[in-house]
Amino acid sequence: MPADRIDKQVAFLTEVDRLKSIERATTLGDGTRFENSAEHSWHVALYALILAEQARPDVEISRVIKMLLIHDLVEIDAGDAPIFGQYDAEKLADEEAKAARRIFGLLPADQASELLDLWNEFEAAATPDAQFAKSMDRFQPPNQNLASGGGSWKDYGVDLNRIEARVGAKIARGAPGLWAWLKPKIKRFMAEN
Amino acid sequence: MPADRIDKQVAFLTEVDRLKSIERATTLGDGTRFENSAEHSWHVALYALILAEQARPDVEISRVIKMLLIHDLVEIDAGDAPIFGQYDAEKLADEEAKAARRIFGLLPADQASELLDLWNEFEAAATPDAQFAKSMDRFQPPNQNLASGGGSWKDYGVDLNRIEARVGAKIARGAPGLWAWLKPKIKRFMAEN
Repeated sequence: MPADRIDKQVAFLTEVDRLKSIERATTLGDGTRFENSAEHSWHVALYALILAEQARPDVEISRVIKMLLIHDLVEIDAGDAPIFGQYDAEKLADEEAKAARRIFGLLPADQASELLDLWNEFEAAATPDAQFAKSMDRFQPPNQNLASGGGSWKDYGVDLNRIEARVGAKIARGAPGLWAWLKPKIKRFMAEN
Repeated sequence: MPADRIDKQVAFLTEVDRLKSIERATTLGDGTRFENSAEHSWHVALYALILAEQARPDVEISRVIKMLLIHDLVEIDAGDAPIFGQYDAEKLADEEAKAARRIFGLLPADQASELLDLWNEFEAAATPDAQFAKSMDRFQPPNQNLASGGGSWKDYGVDLNRIEARVGAKIARGAPGLWAWLKPKIKRFMAEN
């Protein structure tokens, strides 16, 4: 293996360390601080590992986990767009695509191309693997909010209908059993808070 | 899928959120704060994904990534033991084993047993998969230290010999090419700092 190849790989791995400083709208379960996108990426990868049996039979969980490990790297340049926040979707998509080219472009060309394809597949959410990955990415924050006593739902003043439209639909697409399990819990929380 | 099974899985996934509050001896690359064990777990899983070609041919990278996602969960109860710190290895091993039984025990019995086996395999470091996982766990901190200008090496006052004994040997066991790449970089850093 030429040293130059390892140089590029470690340069990439050192650059992505910056994801640990990208703050999300969701807090830790104990509510003490916002979580960052690196620890969120770890958490959703573990969600996929534990909840794999909720995926369609044609889903390959090891590909889903790879997708989830890299899905938020573009936020290093483009920032995190909170799901209930206001943003220009087209402008954000442009910024994220540019970020993906820069960040994955630090890798040797074969790996850059492979991970760019994997990230594009996640974004397009058209394959079973990507749809299950998206459902994990959407299923973790509500569970954080239930643990912390409201979290981003309170901060953004959202109700069950809005959660169902922005979050529930994507959970249900990749993992219908998990939305069926979660929805009554959110409904009860909203009624009591 | 019975709801009771999902209840247990989400209870586990909510409990492991606490790994985001376990501080390590290594800092972020920019030196602004110590990293936590959740974001470290994400980072080393990504190391395994990117550096897979450094593993022996019989290593199954998707198993290595699963190991790395769960390898530090015991720290929720037992804390992080810094690699250059002083601790009672036998007492720590007992505490970690107890922690593994409690934390994995939150899962349905089949998954609890599977993940406990996977964690024990990582700890024993006797299989090729576990040895490569260990090499990733040891290869990331020196790269963080090189990026931050010394980090835990300065805090613990260690030299190249001590790094080679505590860190280099485990990197070299699972990924000899990476230790051959890293050692001269550490040597140069030590000469200049």
